[in-house]
Amino acid sequence: MHSFFHEHRVLIETELKGFFAGKKNNLPYAGIWGPDLMDRFYSFAIQGKMIRGGLVILGYSLFRDHVPETVFKTAAAIEIIHSSLLIHDDIMDRDDLRRGKETFHVQYRDEWMKRQAPDPDHFGKSLAICAGDIGFFLAFDLLSELNIDHILRAKILALWSHELTTVGLAQMQDVSHIFFPNRVTQRDILELYRYKTARYTFSLPLATGALLAGQIEDVTGSFSRLGEQVGIIFQIKDDEIEFFGDSDSTGKSAGSDIREGKKTLFHLHLQKMLDASSSPSAEIQPSISDDERRFLERILGRVKITAADLSKLRQLVKRYGIREKIQHTINKLQQNAEKEISKLPVGEAKKRILTDILESSISRTY
Amino acid sequence: MHSFFHEHRVLIETELKGFFAGKKNNLPYAGIWGPDLMDRFYSFAIQGKMIRGGLVILGYSLFRDHVPETVFKTAAAIEIIHSSLLIHDDIMDRDDLRRGKETFHVQYRDEWMKRQAPDPDHFGKSLAICAGDIGFFLAFDLLSELNIDHILRAKILALWSHELTTVGLAQMQDVSHIFFPNRVTQRDILELYRYKTARYTFSLPLATGALLAGQIEDVTGSFSRLGEQVGIIFQIKDDEIEFFGDSDSTGKSAGSDIREGKKTLFHLHLQKMLDASSSPSAEIQPSISDDERRFLERILGRVKITAADLSKLRQLVKRYGIREKIQHTINKLQQNAEKEISKLPVGEAKKRILTDILESSISRTY
Repeated sequence: MHSFFHEHRVLIETELKGFFAGKKNNLPYAGIWGPDLMDRFYSFAIQGKMIRGGLVILGYSLFRDHVPETVFKTAAAIEIIHSSLLIHDDIMDRDDLRRGKETFHVQYRDEWMKRQAPDPDHFGKSLAICAGDIGFFLAFDLLSELNIDHILRAKILALWSHELTTVGLAQMQDVSHIFFPNRVTQRDILELYRYKTARYTFSLPLATGALLAGQIEDVTGSFSRLGEQVGIIFQIKDDEIEFFGDSDSTGKSAGSDIREGKKTLFHLHLQKMLDASSSPSAEIQPSISDDERRFLERILGRVKITAADLSKLRQLVKRYGIREKIQHTINKLQQNAEKEISKLPVGEAKKRILTDILESSISRTY
Repeated sequence: MHSFFHEHRVLIETELKGFFAGKKNNLPYAGIWGPDLMDRFYSFAIQGKMIRGGLVILGYSLFRDHVPETVFKTAAAIEIIHSSLLIHDDIMDRDDLRRGKETFHVQYRDEWMKRQAPDPDHFGKSLAICAGDIGFFLAFDLLSELNIDHILRAKILALWSHELTTVGLAQMQDVSHIFFPNRVTQRDILELYRYKTARYTFSLPLATGALLAGQIEDVTGSFSRLGEQVGIIFQIKDDEIEFFGDSDSTGKSAGSDIREGKKTLFHLHLQKMLDASSSPSAEIQPSISDDERRFLERILGRVKITAADLSKLRQLVKRYGIREKIQHTINKLQQNAEKEISKLPVGEAKKRILTDILESSISRTY
């Protein structure tokens, strides 16, 4: 990640620490889990890369030099929302690992097992659903407490609730892609990435920062388009890291996308290769061996896959130039993003930061 | 329910209809499920009793005569939030029926089964988690669109996000009560009801309506206390209806609380009776038979219970005066509520509406 994120994450962490400690000491109803959740949520939130929070700060910094505490608080709120979305996503994707630690539903499942109570799986998921919901409410609570103009607060509320609705719908699509029999196209996949990841990860925080800096909605339009290009690249790289990484370096369960049948660009190109192998008139070269065809039929039909399967799949991706095909898609997105950056109403030094972030998104390996 | 709710529900319905139709035609990303969800959510939201929405209108009407459309829109937003909470609760409580129809996760599970896809249970729950999340975001979106003063919007945002955080924590407690070995007291149960149901169902909507009517926060304090008393009664009656009703009349799965081991006042008194039967020095009279003791040990230890078990349990509750004990608790809450109503800064005619609602909450049978 770009150094801008490293430099600012400690400031977001500080806000998160203060916020959760304040809530913990001031819960109107604590129950068994209240104080524990404030600690657990804080620990989880600060383990992320804090890209979204960092982009709020960047969106502000592009227009103003001194960054006030309110901006860091807003960044913290966005990180809380993101944590909640991950807590719910991990239930849906049946992921055990996130940010190098057990996912929330697994943490709660283990709490249940310690107490030798029945149905630990169900209990773990139930408490994780609650925890995610609470995170959303806490983030809006934090927004309500920000010391900003009320008109600005209303604009941010509109932006967030609108974009998050879309993220939710894109997540439903993503969950459903897994099993729906229709073949998806590259266009479908990139469209999903645009709404599931790109707008929410890049456009929304940049626009939020710009609004806090007193910019009117005009600029948020440019940020939207820029955010979409960079964000789609980010998601494609995320898929690549997920596909090639091991859980030690990624902090996530290895091969989860393939196991869950996610329709990534890797999946798309492998599927195309398989289709071509059974239609001799197809123009795709080189064609795969019979053994490879049978292997792909089995894996892409979504079965339990072993570590050996994953390793073989990785070799296929390398051997048949799928990485290069995906790189080609990234290059086109990068060109669009560069065009958007050049048009932004900010100085050259600020544009350089954005270009650097774009480049580090493309070269990132974790 | 009181006629006030009947009279106003159609106006909330109209707002919900307009809101979801508007969203459906204007989704930036629809995906497979977007338009379907807007229809599905609308159908679900309008099947409720709309008590919370009605109380927003009442909270406003206590202070002003003409109720503007903004108040109905706010009522609609609260009903959307409530629907989302129910969608998530039904996953946790494993309920198949709600408002006389299949619960969301069951609806989506069936969609999945139609497509003969694997893991319909998991898929159904995943999509229902998304649907609930989206409902929260849509409600905040509706709040952001309200044509009200921005200071007022900020106050409502603070009120809602604060109270909903508490509802989430109380829900975690409720889920955990099921299995946690510690005995709970009547005080624990009523405290949970206060935060899980009462404040959120009565205090929050009344306070929201009062804020919309231009009242300052002082009044919301009185409304909080009143809402808590009425709301706890409401929850106790809800438990009673759940315990004695059949699914045809309640629209919910029969005996769900007992099946899920929920700690209700019924559960508490049955447990007390069981404890007394094994300690001869206890003062509780009359004591139960050995057969009844063994039966209670089995049921309260939470096993699968049959319709015959439920019927026997209902007889025990009647025979040993548990309904009367619970009525005694209700009577005390009613006295407190009447005191709060008498102190409110509104005219006698308005007080009469509140007293009527209190009384109809106590006498309600569905």
